[in-house]
Amino acid sequence: MISRSPFGDVIEYTINATEEQQRLSEFVHNTRKTVVIQGLGFVGTAMAAAVARARDTHGNPLYNVIGIDLPDEMNYWKIARVNTGLPPVVSTDKSLDAAYAAAYHAGNLTATYSSFAYTLADIIVVDIHLDIKKARLGDARAYEFTLENYQEALRVVAERITNNTLILIETTVPPGTTENILKPMIERIGRERGLDTSTIHIAHSYERVMPGRDYLRSITDFYRVYAGTDKAACIAAREFLSSFINTRDFPLTELHSPTASEMSKVLENSFRAMNIAFMQEWTEFAEAAGVNLFDVIRAIRVRPTHRNIMSPGFGVGGYCLTKDSLLADWSYSSLFAPGKHLDMSLSAINTNDLMPTHTVRLLQRVFPDLRDKHITLFGVSYLNDVADTRYSPAELFYDLCTQAGARVQLHDPLVSYWTEKGLEVCTQFDDIRLLHHDAAVFAVRHSEYLQMTAEDIHAILPNVRLIIDAFDIISDSTAEALRSYGITLLGVGKGHWNAYLRST
Amino acid sequence: MISRSPFGDVIEYTINATEEQQRLSEFVHNTRKTVVIQGLGFVGTAMAAAVARARDTHGNPLYNVIGIDLPDEMNYWKIARVNTGLPPVVSTDKSLDAAYAAAYHAGNLTATYSSFAYTLADIIVVDIHLDIKKARLGDARAYEFTLENYQEALRVVAERITNNTLILIETTVPPGTTENILKPMIERIGRERGLDTSTIHIAHSYERVMPGRDYLRSITDFYRVYAGTDKAACIAAREFLSSFINTRDFPLTELHSPTASEMSKVLENSFRAMNIAFMQEWTEFAEAAGVNLFDVIRAIRVRPTHRNIMSPGFGVGGYCLTKDSLLADWSYSSLFAPGKHLDMSLSAINTNDLMPTHTVRLLQRVFPDLRDKHITLFGVSYLNDVADTRYSPAELFYDLCTQAGARVQLHDPLVSYWTEKGLEVCTQFDDIRLLHHDAAVFAVRHSEYLQMTAEDIHAILPNVRLIIDAFDIISDSTAEALRSYGITLLGVGKGHWNAYLRST
Repeated sequence: MISRSPFGDVIEYTINATEEQQRLSEFVHNTRKTVVIQGLGFVGTAMAAAVARARDTHGNPLYNVIGIDLPDEMNYWKIARVNTGLPPVVSTDKSLDAAYAAAYHAGNLTATYSSFAYTLADIIVVDIHLDIKKARLGDARAYEFTLENYQEALRVVAERITNNTLILIETTVPPGTTENILKPMIERIGRERGLDTSTIHIAHSYERVMPGRDYLRSITDFYRVYAGTDKAACIAAREFLSSFINTRDFPLTELHSPTASEMSKVLENSFRAMNIAFMQEWTEFAEAAGVNLFDVIRAIRVRPTHRNIMSPGFGVGGYCLTKDSLLADWSYSSLFAPGKHLDMSLSAINTNDLMPTHTVRLLQRVFPDLRDKHITLFGVSYLNDVADTRYSPAELFYDLCTQAGARVQLHDPLVSYWTEKGLEVCTQFDDIRLLHHDAAVFAVRHSEYLQMTAEDIHAILPNVRLIIDAFDIISDSTAEALRSYGITLLGVGKGHWNAYLRST
Repeated sequence: MISRSPFGDVIEYTINATEEQQRLSEFVHNTRKTVVIQGLGFVGTAMAAAVARARDTHGNPLYNVIGIDLPDEMNYWKIARVNTGLPPVVSTDKSLDAAYAAAYHAGNLTATYSSFAYTLADIIVVDIHLDIKKARLGDARAYEFTLENYQEALRVVAERITNNTLILIETTVPPGTTENILKPMIERIGRERGLDTSTIHIAHSYERVMPGRDYLRSITDFYRVYAGTDKAACIAAREFLSSFINTRDFPLTELHSPTASEMSKVLENSFRAMNIAFMQEWTEFAEAAGVNLFDVIRAIRVRPTHRNIMSPGFGVGGYCLTKDSLLADWSYSSLFAPGKHLDMSLSAINTNDLMPTHTVRLLQRVFPDLRDKHITLFGVSYLNDVADTRYSPAELFYDLCTQAGARVQLHDPLVSYWTEKGLEVCTQFDDIRLLHHDAAVFAVRHSEYLQMTAEDIHAILPNVRLIIDAFDIISDSTAEALRSYGITLLGVGKGHWNAYLRST
């Protein structure tokens, strides 16, 4: 069979179950404990590196680490990469590459498709995705959700584990999943298999992993919350987490139940999402009142109690802030209180999902008819200095503009191909220079954009009529210099620039 | 005439305008600059002390300070108190008393009802209230608001000032008030009076004063935001603020316009109010899911980016968080964008205003019929360790319970008389002990309540059947001990206690 990685590699592979079981048995044939990481996605990749790097007091590896992912064209390349000493996720964090290379040489990290690995595990870390599908943007309540596939993945685990295993759920799940759904299922299967279920420990702990240059450190050097379904599970989880996390500087927090730990995760992301959404109406207010809201935010952040107030911006993307409130809402209305919903949290998701429409409205104040207008979008990823395009707000912006008949041209220094839309993206300013531009939108605070002078911008966009700064990327003095070229400047949250709008 | 203070003093006074003008002229007959504080309420009281305490490099007072309030029964006692060396507002801050006594001895602070004072002023600080009236709780959009009285107070100032005066607006006003309403009015009156309006400087700066033990320090040792209507006003405002604020440790923040400064104030309070409101649906979720939300909040606050997440609680009171979003909404919809509203911010106000209904619902889970039930409320003020009852959430709780036929008994160690309701309040536990109690609600985190043991509580409430902890006042171990007396414990946000509810 053949697998193609996003890096262009083509990998041929065969699946021979017996050989693979043999290989894994030999891999764990030593005195180390064996940790199986289920899912080599964004979290599993960093977890595998962190756990493989853990050392005992003599400097020897603490664990055999086995990463598991699926044997199909979309995933096999991850397995192949790990087994040649490379991380399965691309990142700008050089320490991740180094950790994979070191584990390859130490021989304590491998990857497999084979669920036989679970039979070898002392600890299983569950890092598989749990998706929730929005029927449409702006109607968060209309989500489609099922735990079926997720339960199925845990059933595979439960059917293979042995006594004395810790199962650590790290997936962001609806609160109640571990205690009310997974634990009864795992214990039922365990009893059917004749296991001593009192030795099967189930716990939940959530990571706070962040993409970017400190990707691996965001696992090993950051605060962690965990909880076990019973005292023994708490102890086992704490011992495991302490073995690869710098708990001296980042002490662990134990909560009283896995449901509390699961709630903590979705609440902290909902808190963040809500604080972003809250700024949207103040953004529009500030624009109407001629106020630079970014200046106001800086003034407010001086107060220690107000340091977390968020900025106006282009939109919200990524995997967590866009969906965790929906997982919480499913839990509330389906597991604990039928008919009850987290209305405010869902309303925040709607506001965030629709946020890019505000930038489109600003465009339309200058170009009421967008037909055949050439709009250049600077920034396709959802986060500054990160190549990640999952649920990027650029999607809605792109769709709205093209639906209105505009031609959208894309630039992002880190993204050459936009997977979700199947579109090529310019990474070089030189390629942008050759195009025609009616308007340009700066949407992401990539370092490359923040460093640009008015001359740089004018050289790339010589005939542009309108520039919209959607995320405080262009300074007042740069804006002033650009105006001298005859360019109109508008800014999200920059009411002091938008007097233009009030006069038209 | 006679004035009665809340301290029981009865003050006789006569108003002789000529004598008062003579007295004030003599008071300022020196080389110091004269600062007039308009309004001796909560902010003006602390401002007068802070400004009177300002010293030059030789240790001499920098300013003559004149506080102004109205010559009527409700206010004259404030004037009388200042003129005997006492602060016009009661507080637990001993440094405020000391500052008033010191200024009395230094002879650089007086108070008057006479608007003649404005003719003597180099600087006028406007600290008068601006109220906005809610038609009903839970419908924040239905507010009644007019700037008329406020403008009238500023007209009195404008008709009396001389050239070279700084008018510093400190009142929380709808954004746009200083630039769009007050400045044109003051300059028009100035021109009519033949003043050189280029020497009349108008600025806005907002305090972040907090009641309690650090009341005066919250003026002098905290961050400040300011903005002038022009460069000269900025300079004048900065110079004045720097003369009595510890700007070495708490640097000033200059904003680009008074509208921005006004927006900053109402936004920071709206941010706070919204973050409190956000927790309400999570409180109900946690209670349904059996989770101790306070524990979860503590776990989340470990993250620096999430340190400001708020706690569940009994409700929100006081003068700022309950109304500033409404002032902002009035500005948005009346001054800048007809028909536009701050929907999310107003919705947060509604949630907060109705929050005490949640505690009443918990009561009714145990006592579906509250008729003739004796409910004892511990905590009548809106804030811990403060005697302030303005817009206390206790009001709605009291109203809902009494409307349902309950008899509500009140305790607060700091409040002997609840002005807003015209009710006596027990300050001693001994008085409470003598009453009958079906249920008790702990609503405010006063130190006295936090220190109570299970034995203390049981001694005061020997036959109580239900205790509701509405603000994380009772620890898990105290709750456990109280249960051994046969008392049912429920808690706002304490799902781990509320299994009782799920089983009934």
